[in-house]
Amino acid sequence: MRPSKRAPDELRPVRIERGVSRHAEGSCLVRFGDTEVLCMASLEDKVPGWLRGAGRGWVTAEYGMLPRATGERMRREAASGRQGGRTLEIQRLIGRSLRAVTDLVKLGERQITVDCDVLQADGGTRTAAITGGWVALHECVRWMQARDMVQESPLVDHVAAVSCGIYAGTPVLDLDYPEDSEAGTDANFVITGSGNLVEVQASAEGAPFSEDELLRLLTLARGGVSRLVDLQKMAIA
Amino acid sequence: MRPSKRAPDELRPVRIERGVSRHAEGSCLVRFGDTEVLCMASLEDKVPGWLRGAGRGWVTAEYGMLPRATGERMRREAASGRQGGRTLEIQRLIGRSLRAVTDLVKLGERQITVDCDVLQADGGTRTAAITGGWVALHECVRWMQARDMVQESPLVDHVAAVSCGIYAGTPVLDLDYPEDSEAGTDANFVITGSGNLVEVQASAEGAPFSEDELLRLLTLARGGVSRLVDLQKMAIA
Amino acid sequence: MRPSKRAPDELRPVRIERGVSRHAEGSCLVRFGDTEVLCMASLEDKVPGWLRGAGRGWVTAEYGMLPRATGERMRREAASGRQGGRTLEIQRLIGRSLRAVTDLVKLGERQITVDCDVLQADGGTRTAAITGGWVALHECVRWMQARDMVQESPLVDHVAAVSCGIYAGTPVLDLDYPEDSEAGTDANFVITGSGNLVEVQASAEGAPFSEDELLRLLTLARGGVSRLVDLQKMAIA
Amino acid sequence: MRPSKRAPDELRPVRIERGVSRHAEGSCLVRFGDTEVLCMASLEDKVPGWLRGAGRGWVTAEYGMLPRATGERMRREAASGRQGGRTLEIQRLIGRSLRAVTDLVKLGERQITVDCDVLQADGGTRTAAITGGWVALHECVRWMQARDMVQESPLVDHVAAVSCGIYAGTPVLDLDYPEDSEAGTDANFVITGSGNLVEVQASAEGAPFSEDELLRLLTLARGGVSRLVDLQKMAIA
Amino acid sequence: MRPSKRAPDELRPVRIERGVSRHAEGSCLVRFGDTEVLCMASLEDKVPGWLRGAGRGWVTAEYGMLPRATGERMRREAASGRQGGRTLEIQRLIGRSLRAVTDLVKLGERQITVDCDVLQADGGTRTAAITGGWVALHECVRWMQARDMVQESPLVDHVAAVSCGIYAGTPVLDLDYPEDSEAGTDANFVITGSGNLVEVQASAEGAPFSEDELLRLLTLARGGVSRLVDLQKMAIA
Amino acid sequence: MRPSKRAPDELRPVRIERGVSRHAEGSCLVRFGDTEVLCMASLEDKVPGWLRGAGRGWVTAEYGMLPRATGERMRREAASGRQGGRTLEIQRLIGRSLRAVTDLVKLGERQITVDCDVLQADGGTRTAAITGGWVALHECVRWMQARDMVQESPLVDHVAAVSCGIYAGTPVLDLDYPEDSEAGTDANFVITGSGNLVEVQASAEGAPFSEDELLRLLTLARGGVSRLVDLQKMAIA
Repeated sequence: MRPSKRAPDELRPVRIERGVSRHAEGSCLVRFGDTEVLCMASLEDKVPGWLRGAGRGWVTAEYGMLPRATGERMRREAASGRQGGRTLEIQRLIGRSLRAVTDLVKLGERQITVDCDVLQADGGTRTAAITGGWVALHECVRWMQARDMVQESPLVDHVAAVSCGIYAGTPVLDLDYPEDSEAGTDANFVITGSGNLVEVQASAEGAPFSEDELLRLLTLARGGVSRLVDLQKMAIA
Repeated sequence: MRPSKRAPDELRPVRIERGVSRHAEGSCLVRFGDTEVLCMASLEDKVPGWLRGAGRGWVTAEYGMLPRATGERMRREAASGRQGGRTLEIQRLIGRSLRAVTDLVKLGERQITVDCDVLQADGGTRTAAITGGWVALHECVRWMQARDMVQESPLVDHVAAVSCGIYAGTPVLDLDYPEDSEAGTDANFVITGSGNLVEVQASAEGAPFSEDELLRLLTLARGGVSRLVDLQKMAIA
Repeated sequence: MRPSKRAPDELRPVRIERGVSRHAEGSCLVRFGDTEVLCMASLEDKVPGWLRGAGRGWVTAEYGMLPRATGERMRREAASGRQGGRTLEIQRLIGRSLRAVTDLVKLGERQITVDCDVLQADGGTRTAAITGGWVALHECVRWMQARDMVQESPLVDHVAAVSCGIYAGTPVLDLDYPEDSEAGTDANFVITGSGNLVEVQASAEGAPFSEDELLRLLTLARGGVSRLVDLQKMAIA
Repeated sequence: MRPSKRAPDELRPVRIERGVSRHAEGSCLVRFGDTEVLCMASLEDKVPGWLRGAGRGWVTAEYGMLPRATGERMRREAASGRQGGRTLEIQRLIGRSLRAVTDLVKLGERQITVDCDVLQADGGTRTAAITGGWVALHECVRWMQARDMVQESPLVDHVAAVSCGIYAGTPVLDLDYPEDSEAGTDANFVITGSGNLVEVQASAEGAPFSEDELLRLLTLARGGVSRLVDLQKMAIA
Repeated sequence: MRPSKRAPDELRPVRIERGVSRHAEGSCLVRFGDTEVLCMASLEDKVPGWLRGAGRGWVTAEYGMLPRATGERMRREAASGRQGGRTLEIQRLIGRSLRAVTDLVKLGERQITVDCDVLQADGGTRTAAITGGWVALHECVRWMQARDMVQESPLVDHVAAVSCGIYAGTPVLDLDYPEDSEAGTDANFVITGSGNLVEVQASAEGAPFSEDELLRLLTLARGGVSRLVDLQKMAIA
Repeated sequence: MRPSKRAPDELRPVRIERGVSRHAEGSCLVRFGDTEVLCMASLEDKVPGWLRGAGRGWVTAEYGMLPRATGERMRREAASGRQGGRTLEIQRLIGRSLRAVTDLVKLGERQITVDCDVLQADGGTRTAAITGGWVALHECVRWMQARDMVQESPLVDHVAAVSCGIYAGTPVLDLDYPEDSEAGTDANFVITGSGNLVEVQASAEGAPFSEDELLRLLTLARGGVSRLVDLQKMAIA
């Protein structure tokens, strides 16, 4: 049995609240259980230098964690003077995931930056960030539509993410921190609303895993993302 | 008349909510109108190197702003690789203010770090941070008392802060961002529960100001802090 | 047909040459076609601070690219003052991959750092680094065995890696740079000598991919890694 | 009695020597007792990016301390790779103080940077820097007038600064280092030639202070600045 | 007798192999005994900002060492976030040496960057880098000539470098690491094909040296550079 | 004729004033014409980590320039976050030069750091820094002798430095900035009181130079250093 008492294929209670920022063009506070991530989409009327004049836009993400989002206080990255490897890896993943469902030509020569800041962490911060980041991005697109900046939405599909792992020999969905610390294999799946894969990242924490195990995790993830996409739809309704 | 329609001596609606973090020993979400600051106190069982063996503890603070806490997205300090002068100045002020009401000998050889992160900014973030930081610190002290780590509270008084300024010729209390942008003089007062001064920082934004104006701002600040201390008392009750 | 004229399941010519450094305890120059990576394993008699006294060792990796390893000269990371996100991501991957086949308790309280420096890049630098890094690590372990520092080898299996992608609709093995630039999906597989999975990282570069496509890439990767492990065996014989 | 044997309202011997640099458009070596600050004003024919085209100029300051300006050698900030919070706070204060008496429109689209470098420190470096910085700025303005770059001086008033504190219960003027280390309250006042306030920064080092104490310090400061302004006048005569 | 058993005026076996990079416009792998340096010349069609519009080009160099090029692993400069003083000093020397034999006007408004990366170090890395860097630069110039980018070669002469030192009282040529560690005086000479001096850097490691000793080292260096220039000629033939 | 009207072998007016710092154990303000360098020696009772327990001490130097020491204001290195290559090169040279005349065993397990800060630059800052740095070091040693920290002086000789160059075809001594900018060859010589060489650094700025030219510069330098050593003797008398 899982420490969280959940069934193997059971998500934590997920809440997605949009419109939480007075300033950002799109925003969302997403909770996967005790994990809380504040996502804010900022629109800029210019693109990075290397994309100038290319007739399309860009979507990027930045990720951060408040120092005491975790059980032990971590050093503030602004104070240490550099973003750690984990931070950079996660924000690159979020950016790729959101771009995978965005038509950058339809966006026009503009950039949307989605800041994902973890207020509280209990495992799954990157999957919550992708899931909530999409809602913030969607709200930003609506803001643009309301101002006739784009005719058609550049968002071509939903995208959401969930983690899975093998806990005490059993594949389980949406690991919280105590489960994640013990899980033998840790995988993150980023999946579109239509059920296709955007990113698969599976990592053996202890013993290597088999193809069969990978597939069982993937099946769990599909179920989880399907429910997350339903929650995204309710949030933007 | 003020853009906010408030009377000259009227605070914005202030809300102080404690116990908002699952992990921190003390925490508080404080709102001064649309300004929102999350304060988390972290206890460590060791002190900075220069204080080792001195028989007393330390209270320090760190301050940060989410990139889109403001109307225009600001560059993330972790990405730019350094904390700006404004950030460092504010976190030094918060730390000094909290230490002014802490008996560091009673605290013992421990450090409490109060992280103040601005989720949304509309003027007065440093004063909100000091006001809420005290509540987080108080909760952390209670946490220690519940574990018999300290006999008596090392907190010797309340401390809270408020800004004042001269807006269109009139001294007004607790400036929001539109008022702050226009104010001729900008002052921050940090005052104890017993009405004594901990910090006075007054700055002419345009024309220099007179001693009389300084005193009128101080009178307003006293009134404001008195109400903030009442709100702190309700929050910790 | 692939730009490289190779069959879909055909590796580039792979050469693994060990013992190339006069100084390092283990070393290997690995070539996957025109991709050349110099791997050097350095043994230290101490472990990172957080592992001190834990009765086990550590294996870590660092990754770098010479500025003109690529078609366009890139800025030297030492000159820009920070390692990019891609660099950090890759070196974390190499480290995890090598640790997955190392018994850290048998290693004892020592650290082995495997430096992987790309002399020339033509796609697949991270997979070459893992494949060659294992050979350098193996040589370092032999060096230790020759000095009776360890009784039994802490290396419990081979590990090697290969990339796969969907090129012009066809799953293909071991992408070179021109293929990689055009591939719709890009995946890296890290697999042990016994055929189990250590890491799977699959990313949609354009359209999302299906579970079936993932499995076809995985099948190709298994075949490729099996041949790479044979080459590792020949190199260390 | 003060360690320096001075009367409570007595400044240290102050010397202001202008024209000390062969290169700078304006320069001044200012001494408050053993505190020595070299101030050099540099004129540039362009403004910071955010001010371009706004039809006005900018005055800014930078502050530094030689490593052995103090009793114990401090680490060189250029070597540690970042300016400390104290440095940034002081240079922001100097800049604001000088801008408070400068008509930036009359200056035209130019920037004057006033570098204040402490050669020897004995308390009051920031107040000496403001006092001497004004003289360097004034000399720079004269340099511009001599070349018909400005018709009328953009300097609208004098500005000078002095510290005050409560030493052994008595408010005293112009603290040297031994007095500053013991003082219960530490305040810096920046005041114009016409007696108005530009900046007030008062800080309880130990016990909080009362409004009455603040006012007594302010009275001392007025007297001190009045004498400093006389010395500025003699220096530029 | 020298640890290397060489005669006092004997170079180590030197090998210069050009055309070793698939990407760089010019490249060279140079070996002075066990010292191996990979030199790659990159051509860019623009010059540094301060040279724009001046009607001439620029040649610059960057230098790096792989972390385990040496007997003890050194920290990776990209990871530590700054290039050390030794690195900066050497790359400035290489750049000056190559510019000394380049007609920058004939080069036109272009920059050539010569990256010199030490794969293995055994003393004399800077002299090997200059000697090999010239070959890479020459190959780059040929690449330009083949494309009619320059009419006449901007290279006006050969340049090569060698170290000398006083080992056990005897002046010796081309120190390897064990000799260098023991040598009393260490000198590097950069000399043109026509025998003129470009750089002389002589340093007393222990006792100061006399003018006579300097001249004897210089005589050795002339002989050594003359042979290095012959080897350059063979390499580019 | 030289721009400075000096004879080819004529030094600028040199002034060496010791005891200029209230805090430093040794100090010296040295002027070579308009070049002014403040040298302060700081004694610490511990050595760098790599020297601990070795039974000897260390002498090191740091070098800096005030931003407006030069004709054009340069960016403050503390603000840019790194010391430039020129700075690092010079401070390494100063340190080596001073160590060349120090018996580190006699110094005992202590470190002396000599800070050389350029207040005004007009060419020859590094040679002035070495010449004045020796005086500060000497005063620091006397300070130690007065406290019986060392029996015998660890300073075994004088050391001083001077630049030479070929100006309009003529070898000249002690270049000022206008001469240095035009000189064809630029050389710095560090020479002991007994006339031996510690460092020779000669660099062709334009055309390479001959052995004969090097020797003529060296002859000039010997004469110059001999007079500088006399001035050092007068300063410490």
